[in-house]
Amino acid sequence: MTRIRTDLAVEAKEVYEQQNEGKIPGVQIEEYEEIGMKVTHVKIVNEHGEKSMGKPIGEYITIDMPEFVHYDKEVMDDVSKALAKTLSKIVKLDKSMTALVVGLGNWNVTPDALGPKVISKLMVTRHLKELVPDSIDENVRPVCAISPGVLGLTGIETAEIIKSVADKIKPNLIVCIDALASRKTERVNRTIQIGDTGISPGSGIGNKRMEISKRTLGIPVIAIGVPTVVHAATLANDTIDLAIDEIINQATKGGEFYNMLKSLNKGEKERLINEILHPYVGDLVVTPKEIDVVVDSISKVIANGINIALQPALDLEDINKYVN
Amino acid sequence: MTRIRTDLAVEAKEVYEQQNEGKIPGVQIEEYEEIGMKVTHVKIVNEHGEKSMGKPIGEYITIDMPEFVHYDKEVMDDVSKALAKTLSKIVKLDKSMTALVVGLGNWNVTPDALGPKVISKLMVTRHLKELVPDSIDENVRPVCAISPGVLGLTGIETAEIIKSVADKIKPNLIVCIDALASRKTERVNRTIQIGDTGISPGSGIGNKRMEISKRTLGIPVIAIGVPTVVHAATLANDTIDLAIDEIINQATKGGEFYNMLKSLNKGEKERLINEILHPYVGDLVVTPKEIDVVVDSISKVIANGINIALQPALDLEDINKYVN
Amino acid sequence: MTRIRTDLAVEAKEVYEQQNEGKIPGVQIEEYEEIGMKVTHVKIVNEHGEKSMGKPIGEYITIDMPEFVHYDKEVMDDVSKALAKTLSKIVKLDKSMTALVVGLGNWNVTPDALGPKVISKLMVTRHLKELVPDSIDENVRPVCAISPGVLGLTGIETAEIIKSVADKIKPNLIVCIDALASRKTERVNRTIQIGDTGISPGSGIGNKRMEISKRTLGIPVIAIGVPTVVHAATLANDTIDLAIDEIINQATKGGEFYNMLKSLNKGEKERLINEILHPYVGDLVVTPKEIDVVVDSISKVIANGINIALQPALDLEDINKYVN
Amino acid sequence: MTRIRTDLAVEAKEVYEQQNEGKIPGVQIEEYEEIGMKVTHVKIVNEHGEKSMGKPIGEYITIDMPEFVHYDKEVMDDVSKALAKTLSKIVKLDKSMTALVVGLGNWNVTPDALGPKVISKLMVTRHLKELVPDSIDENVRPVCAISPGVLGLTGIETAEIIKSVADKIKPNLIVCIDALASRKTERVNRTIQIGDTGISPGSGIGNKRMEISKRTLGIPVIAIGVPTVVHAATLANDTIDLAIDEIINQATKGGEFYNMLKSLNKGEKERLINEILHPYVGDLVVTPKEIDVVVDSISKVIANGINIALQPALDLEDINKYVN
Repeated sequence: MTRIRTDLAVEAKEVYEQQNEGKIPGVQIEEYEEIGMKVTHVKIVNEHGEKSMGKPIGEYITIDMPEFVHYDKEVMDDVSKALAKTLSKIVKLDKSMTALVVGLGNWNVTPDALGPKVISKLMVTRHLKELVPDSIDENVRPVCAISPGVLGLTGIETAEIIKSVADKIKPNLIVCIDALASRKTERVNRTIQIGDTGISPGSGIGNKRMEISKRTLGIPVIAIGVPTVVHAATLANDTIDLAIDEIINQATKGGEFYNMLKSLNKGEKERLINEILHPYVGDLVVTPKEIDVVVDSISKVIANGINIALQPALDLEDINKYVN
Repeated sequence: MTRIRTDLAVEAKEVYEQQNEGKIPGVQIEEYEEIGMKVTHVKIVNEHGEKSMGKPIGEYITIDMPEFVHYDKEVMDDVSKALAKTLSKIVKLDKSMTALVVGLGNWNVTPDALGPKVISKLMVTRHLKELVPDSIDENVRPVCAISPGVLGLTGIETAEIIKSVADKIKPNLIVCIDALASRKTERVNRTIQIGDTGISPGSGIGNKRMEISKRTLGIPVIAIGVPTVVHAATLANDTIDLAIDEIINQATKGGEFYNMLKSLNKGEKERLINEILHPYVGDLVVTPKEIDVVVDSISKVIANGINIALQPALDLEDINKYVN
Repeated sequence: MTRIRTDLAVEAKEVYEQQNEGKIPGVQIEEYEEIGMKVTHVKIVNEHGEKSMGKPIGEYITIDMPEFVHYDKEVMDDVSKALAKTLSKIVKLDKSMTALVVGLGNWNVTPDALGPKVISKLMVTRHLKELVPDSIDENVRPVCAISPGVLGLTGIETAEIIKSVADKIKPNLIVCIDALASRKTERVNRTIQIGDTGISPGSGIGNKRMEISKRTLGIPVIAIGVPTVVHAATLANDTIDLAIDEIINQATKGGEFYNMLKSLNKGEKERLINEILHPYVGDLVVTPKEIDVVVDSISKVIANGINIALQPALDLEDINKYVN
Repeated sequence: MTRIRTDLAVEAKEVYEQQNEGKIPGVQIEEYEEIGMKVTHVKIVNEHGEKSMGKPIGEYITIDMPEFVHYDKEVMDDVSKALAKTLSKIVKLDKSMTALVVGLGNWNVTPDALGPKVISKLMVTRHLKELVPDSIDENVRPVCAISPGVLGLTGIETAEIIKSVADKIKPNLIVCIDALASRKTERVNRTIQIGDTGISPGSGIGNKRMEISKRTLGIPVIAIGVPTVVHAATLANDTIDLAIDEIINQATKGGEFYNMLKSLNKGEKERLINEILHPYVGDLVVTPKEIDVVVDSISKVIANGINIALQPALDLEDINKYVN
């Protein structure tokens, strides 16, 4: 069985269901609507689920964004509100507690710039609470933010930077935003995943080795991710599978040839993929051409969703006055 | 036989050679080195060649750029010089004749922004020759430039805009720069194609319907193109072919199954491709993640190559003083 | 009397009123509110007005944008609607007539990029009306657009490019958008001027020599301008005036010194200004540091206002579906 | 005596000399040439110097860049080399010692983006030394880098972030890059200042309150700054002074009026400045229009200079291979 790595729990679930029959042991799935958007709530409850899904025990909620989100303010606001509602369910925080929002990724590389772009649209208040407390409503929660960069640009593990800053300012919650890779093009820029297990090593389209999670940082970590690319290698892999499935459908089940096709092994597939992507292999991604504009829109939607969730005492109009 | 559309003559040649044996009738091919770079000179000399290659009669020269070009000024200058040398071979122009350089593509979409980016780094002199002729060396050729945008942004055929401007300012030569799509990832950002047949409808990664050529404009048109993407549909298509070839290799030649595989028809392949790319199909491209930085470097190399070719009386240092 | 050049009619009026008493001959001024914004409507009705104001006979309408426009969607929509309402008053156009929108300025220079940025957010329909007429509502007006660049980048007079394209596609109306320079910092990014006399040579912060107007193009030209900078030379000039006024206030009126101050002549002032701005003089501008973000927001407001005005049959939601 | 704040020691010196006669007590000044560029070396040696200059005891070296630096690779390389030579004089570091380079400023605000832009062009090696030590020459120094953002975006004092990271990774040297404000337009984008006293609160055009220095961080801090703006308030102030000086020159020395002018006090001047800049006052800056392009060029020059200084064992060609 070929294991396809995916950043999305909802895709891991699909892969499992494709390769097995029946329910996934140790995993609870609930689907419902929020402001007209489909929400899929995946709970991995024990080690069985962990193993089947290739993801740690915890909650993973996926919101499917509607189609015209990027041009329509009302739809964008609705997505922000659905995100805020979802966040509120898994964020338990007194109003005086501090949140640190972390924008993962590289601001020079468009499909990886989602995190830093969210940071630039966030309502940041910690310094106002500290420096000019009288000028600011006491119901405003202290929020701070960093964009730590990526290992290739900084030479420092991203988790190390976050840990240093968190040790110093002692937030009660960390919210990480990251650009992800999905397996399917239909999810690119259309899906938001919210999880409570942090960021695992190697997730995201950047380069992260050390886990960013409650286990390593000692503070609850909520991860918000949006797939902005499919890896070209994933696309090539899935295309090969699809081609083979098609041929198998036309072959006689149980025949000699059928069995040969079934056994096209992983090594052979990888060789094919390397051949087709040479010399880029690892770095090629599949994106819509207009990725610049789209990442910009999505970063607004995410930033607003976080602002609403972290500042329950304010309405959107008040929030806008603080946003930079 | 499935026809793969490619913007590069060198790839059309490869496709032909893969599907046929022996030389391509009506096509002359010459390979040589220029400042250490491999140059492939494809001449389509008659209608046979035109038909086999799917490209009009004319010359198509491809320069393979070396690997570390984007970080190394010396290599970048070498590529500019090789480009200038190649251009000089097919550009026949008195020193007083005016050249119009056209940057095709959309400056808001990174992989399509190559043309407009080249324009912004060009040595433009026509206005100086007209407004302050005494301040400028008489050996400087009048050069002007436009970035006409793309149909989706302007609502006007790009060729119509170019024709209007050309009719008014009456240049003796038009040089078009365009971002292309290649079939193979190994050519992305690594190949420069120079051709004397203009831009055919539907070429480029933008959206052009009317030909930009001597035939439509009445002025010689040199096209300079660099592939910045592979269409995801091309990648999927080639991946399917490769997978099938692989399976065929393992099947008994002439057997029933072998023949079935050979006949997997175009319609079936297209359905598979649509399935894998849904819902984006037409718009998805495969690029290196760092496309922003790379397009920037290449636009410098191209602009410099054009500057050197169009201003034979000046050296690079003089040129830099004029460049904006 | 020192003549201060300003792109805004409302400022020319202020300068006149400061230097003279009473009404301006040949100029009618009307002030009113539109969706809570102050609108000043200046009509220059004859040659007396033309001479006093330094601007051609015609209408100049100024909308003062409210303060928090850049962060608040509702306020931004209100400004778009006020702009659309104002445009509708001076644009007389059958629904089948074609409009050409021209984004003046340089997209590489932030404070001068307003025009091209508006173009990228416009609802462009002419190609759809021509290529796929059945797919588009018959009430949609054909709109097309170009960003012709600036003389320094193209080597071609901007008006020449516009005239070539207009001669070819024969629009019934041209709408030009341009970044302006105001005299006062309080108007920077806060004022929209709509005029029916086109763009005069030397206006704008770019470099335009040939008039863009009904006189030169044979088609009505509406100009929409927003000041994005104050020239540093203007700021220095006004600062000197203010300093001298202050000193005069402290001197005895009619005394010898009073008269000396009054006579500080233009040449002396220019020498002072050159000294303070050396070696940049012409190119220095005064802007808010956040000009990148602000120009982006304003371009959305302007594009939306034009979209509403040019497509009276559609509502904002429909428009958003077409916008690219 | 009005105190003009300036980020440049060379300007503090000029202000002092203008207001006083003779040498500045406690300050040693040396001027010489480096690769054709004028270098001014200011040493503040004791508290007298500290008081007169408004800057802490330490060394401040200023390099004047030549005029056409932004378009000419050779001149750019020369400036990088002059910077590297100057850095080498004040950086004493064994080859195995780690350097942390900090890009101060806001990457979303062009004139303030110099620091983060330098970081994106730096040769970063610490992770390679740690993760793949065998793949990298042992003479390569471990270098790491961060762009901590600005207080308004992060809600965290910049110095706090730097201190957290420095405490964790324990570098032997910190190099900070910052965009500065000069008093004179002639120094904008033309001057590099290198100092060994760190960054004082309130310096830079961003917003920093806590000192970034050996005193606060426990590690030597080298600051590299380039003025990218003049504050509009500074320009207005200096213009007023110049205007008054001019009038004074025309008045009779010692006369009543002369004395009145001399006494135009600080409060009055501030009121004038506020009036002229209303409503922006604090945030307006004076820059060349092409600031985007210029900051980009300068960031390359600075990054290269640091690369050369920190990697004495490598030549420029080797460095380019590592740069991202």
